[in-house]
Formats: sequence, structure tokens, C-alpha cells
Amino acid sequence: MGISIVRFQKDGEKWGVLEDGVIYELKQQYETLAHFLKEGVKEAESLQKEAAVQHQQQEVELLSPVTAPAQIVCQGANYAAHREEGGLDAKRPPFNMIFTKAASSLSGPGQDIESPKKVKLLDYEIELGLVFKKELNQPLEDGFKDLSEYIAGFIITNDVSSRDIQFTENQWYKGKSFRTFCPAGPVLYLIDQEEAEKVHDLELTLKVNGEVRQQANTTQLLYKPEETLVELSRMMNFYPGDLLMTGTPGGVALKLSPEDMNLLLNPFEKLDKKVETLNESQGKNEHYLKEGDVITSEIKSRDGTIDLGLQENKVRFI
Amino acid sequence: MGISIVRFQKDGEKWGVLEDGVIYELKQQYETLAHFLKEGVKEAESLQKEAAVQHQQQEVELLSPVTAPAQIVCQGANYAAHREEGGLDAKRPPFNMIFTKAASSLSGPGQDIESPKKVKLLDYEIELGLVFKKELNQPLEDGFKDLSEYIAGFIITNDVSSRDIQFTENQWYKGKSFRTFCPAGPVLYLIDQEEAEKVHDLELTLKVNGEVRQQANTTQLLYKPEETLVELSRMMNFYPGDLLMTGTPGGVALKLSPEDMNLLLNPFEKLDKKVETLNESQGKNEHYLKEGDVITSEIKSRDGTIDLGLQENKVRFI
Repeated sequence: MGISIVRFQKDGEKWGVLEDGVIYELKQQYETLAHFLKEGVKEAESLQKEAAVQHQQQEVELLSPVTAPAQIVCQGANYAAHREEGGLDAKRPPFNMIFTKAASSLSGPGQDIESPKKVKLLDYEIELGLVFKKELNQPLEDGFKDLSEYIAGFIITNDVSSRDIQFTENQWYKGKSFRTFCPAGPVLYLIDQEEAEKVHDLELTLKVNGEVRQQANTTQLLYKPEETLVELSRMMNFYPGDLLMTGTPGGVALKLSPEDMNLLLNPFEKLDKKVETLNESQGKNEHYLKEGDVITSEIKSRDGTIDLGLQENKVRFI
Repeated sequence: MGISIVRFQKDGEKWGVLEDGVIYELKQQYETLAHFLKEGVKEAESLQKEAAVQHQQQEVELLSPVTAPAQIVCQGANYAAHREEGGLDAKRPPFNMIFTKAASSLSGPGQDIESPKKVKLLDYEIELGLVFKKELNQPLEDGFKDLSEYIAGFIITNDVSSRDIQFTENQWYKGKSFRTFCPAGPVLYLIDQEEAEKVHDLELTLKVNGEVRQQANTTQLLYKPEETLVELSRMMNFYPGDLLMTGTPGGVALKLSPEDMNLLLNPFEKLDKKVETLNESQGKNEHYLKEGDVITSEIKSRDGTIDLGLQENKVRFI
């Protein structure tokens, strides 16, 4: 399909098609992503550019195309290099680890990441996001191949994580769910059946203050999107506008030894001891995010046909 | 306020007020709980019973008053006795453990629990559920007291759990999110400001095939609803119709020694070994749910003014 959708603020919240830095505004207002997916895709497909109100991309405030409330379902430890740096076995694990983030963690692709001051170990995680276009409410068959049947398109997401909360409380939801901890966008790239398989060849790059920290290709995903959809369809429903985040590659700030990981996961170890261990092993690590750091993320297909835009967020502690 | 709301199936999905076994049907249709909370509460309050269509409770199929999609946010290990049987320290822990369940796990108060055949260690967890009536999108002040400002009312929920998946995959979402793993209802009991504090004196009773397994009072909750709302309001938003589950008391099937718990949480222990350990320690435990078991749950205030009805679900492996 090859249409790049953006949502933006310009005298109200609007939707548009992005081409070469120009946003062609859609006439209808869509309050939620689900509403856009139901009625707006047609409008975007039949857009007459000459007749549309136009904006330069730089002149508007871009918003997350994924709107809250929505389910944000995440795959954990789904690239070998990220498993290793997190103190885990680098091989494909025997299960597909799944957790969630709160919908209200969603924020715009240019909005500040506002971390609570108490968070000392703030980390980044670039991830390819998949957006559901229709309800998935029954088990998919083995061998399911055509992602485009359920997936509207691709989007850049950042699974911003407070490592101190994540690894001292065992369940990851809280450490990953603060408001602004899920920048998404700028582009929701709508796929058709032919483009769906490009999900396996997307280049991810995340930089902090211009320095490359994460660089990988989705071909390295341990649990593939198709098999993940099959597995999850046998457990739960997805609704239009929901987001599946496919996991982050290596290069995050977190560097845990297996011994530290083991201590952190021990439910009988005192919280103070865990915090101390984390601070000792991570405290001098310069890669954790600091006030004013700027994170830029890009995801593109190797053949250049898909470009999910530039996500750029500044870090603030509030 | 003291109004018992039910949702039921009788020539379509309807809402009604329950009194002494009789359901007084509301005239308007409300597609979602959020819609009911916005417009239906007024209709319920001004109901003229004589003029309403009436049904005997037994003649209709009761549905979950909480409708999907919605956020289901859960407190873990929030009663001392449940902490101990789960291999944890019985004291109030230094943090409020939070995880989530998929919205599609919601099911009716009389519907079968349909567990996948692969689940060998199926467990029950009665919990008091709190339903949000309006958006909570900003930090609450310390000392926040009036739950009724954000909470519409109380409901019986069962956090059905596959212990084998929950404890071998570390993150709890999957083991607790299968469809039908969250029976809710029958009654959504609407509270007013005065009744809100009865949240601290509700008696929970869960039986399996008539045998009492869980019996406790919400006065034993380690992290109280008010402080939990304060904490979560500083992290995330809630939306009308969302559900907060406050944790389960002692008496579940699960009985883990600290040593087993430690092994299960070790990320370097092989999955096979974990499964073996679980099967050895839990396999002969007759309290895990079997085909045809019937779970009945009740929650009532000690003074008899609040009665959330009878939840009754049969277990099936599919």
C-alpha cells in the first residue's frame, strides 16, 4: 500500500498522509486510531493531493498515531544480543516472553520523555511496532503467513524502561509504564499483502546524542511476528488500534552479569541489597539516560521503500 | 448508593438493577460498561420498578458487567497468607507488585472456565475488583481518601491462573490471560461516598465443589486501595470501565517452598528442570482444578448491607 500516515496537532488533532516532508491533511477528524483504521484508510487511499490542505512536517507537532486506550503487548528478550547483555542465555528461549505497558505511556514522536526523579537507571529500547487493524478473536492456524490480514502497518516505538523498578519488582509493568515511556511514530506505514513480508528485513537504528547505540535488523527476531500472532491468538483477543511491540535488539544501557541477574530475581533477597547491587553494577555506566539527552530512532527497509520517519525525544527528569 | 447492577443476555445484551432475585430491566441499551457508567447510572437511580420489564435472575444468562476492551490491572501477593503459601515473605513487601491480564480473559459469572489442555496446574484466586467510573489522568495527593471519586463500585473477580505458565516464564501476563480466566460479577455494586470505606471490611469466600478454600476479609489487604490509587495515579491513566483487582488471600492450590520459588525464578535454570520441579512439588496437590470442578465465590460486607452475589463457574479443559 505504501501510505505513510501521521497524526498531528494544528488547530486541533488531525490525520494526514506524509510524502517528502509534506503532510496532506485528511478532511475528516478521527478521534482514535481505531476510528481512523475503520474509515480513514479509504480517505487516505483516495486522497487528492492537489486539493488537500498542506503543511510542512516541521511546522506541526506530530502526535503518536497509536491512541490511548489501547492494548500494548510486548515481546521481551527477543533478540540474541539483547538477551546476552541482560544476563540471559543468547539462544532462542523455549518460550516467547510477553508483558504489557500501560496505554497512557504512549507519547508523541517528538515529545519529551518525562521520567520521575526517583528513577536512576533510565534506559531506551527501540522496537518495531505492529498495529492491529481488525479484531483478532479466534485461534489462527499453524502456518499463518499473511500478517496484512490483521496488521495495518509498522511504526517506530521506544520501550523506555526504568531498570531500577523493572528489576527490583520482578513484574515489568510498572518500570515500563510511566507516562511518556512509549514514544510512537511519527509514521504509521500502512502495508498491503505484498509488503507484509518486509517485516523481516527492517533496519533499526537508535542513537543517543548522535552516537549509535542500537543497530540491528528484524531478520534477527527470535520469535517472528507471524508465529507470535498465532500463539497469542490462541490465548487472547486483539482489537483495532492495539500495538504489538516486537522486542529490542542489543545496545541498551543495561549490562547485567548472570550473577547479578540471579540476585535480582531472588524473591528472598532484600530490596535494599538489590538496589545496592544494581547501583554498583550499573551506576558508573555512562549509557543510562541523563537530563537533556536526545534519543533519535529510525526504522527503514533495506531496499529503501519503507521509511518510518525520525523519532526524536529529549529526556527530562520531573 | 446501594444499587446492584447486572448485565445479562435475554433477547440481546441488557443492563438491569437486581433486587431480591428480580432483575428490573433498563430501557436503554449500553454497549460497553463505560457507556453504562456515563448514561446508565442515572437511569438505574431513577428506575420505576413497577413500570420495568422484570426477570427472575435464574431465567437469564448473567454476563460480566466489565466489558472488553478495558484495562485489567492487578495487585500481586497482597495478602500475607497468600504470600507465605507462594514461597514469599509474609510481611508487607517494600513495593506494591503490579501486573495485568488481557481484557479478553473477562467472562460471565456463570460461564465455564475453559482452560487449554496443556495447562496442568490450574488455580483459582478470588479477588475484590474495583471499577473505575471516570478517567484518572493526574497524580492524586498523598492522603487521598474518597475512593468514590474515581471508583464506581465493587465486583467479584477470579484471577484464574495457570501456575505452570506463570512460574516458568517469569512474567505473569500469559499464565493469567487465557480467554475465560477472569470471571467477573454477577453484581457491580455502585457505591457512594459513605459506602466507599466499606472496601476495608468485605468478606471473601471461595469454595471448590462446596469446600471452603479461601476465606478472608479485605481488612487484611497489605496495600490498601486508596494508597494503590495514589501510587498508580502517579504513573498511569485509568479510563471509565477499567478494572483494578486487589489481590487474592490465602488458600489457593499453589503451595511453593522458598527453595522451589527460588529455582523457578532463576533465569539460568532450564525450562525442563522448572517444569519437573513444579510437577514434583505440585503434581500430587489435589487442590488444583480438575475437569468439572465448580468454583463458587461470594463477597459481602460484614454488616450485610453489601452483597456482590454468587459467582459460579465450572472448569473445562478444551
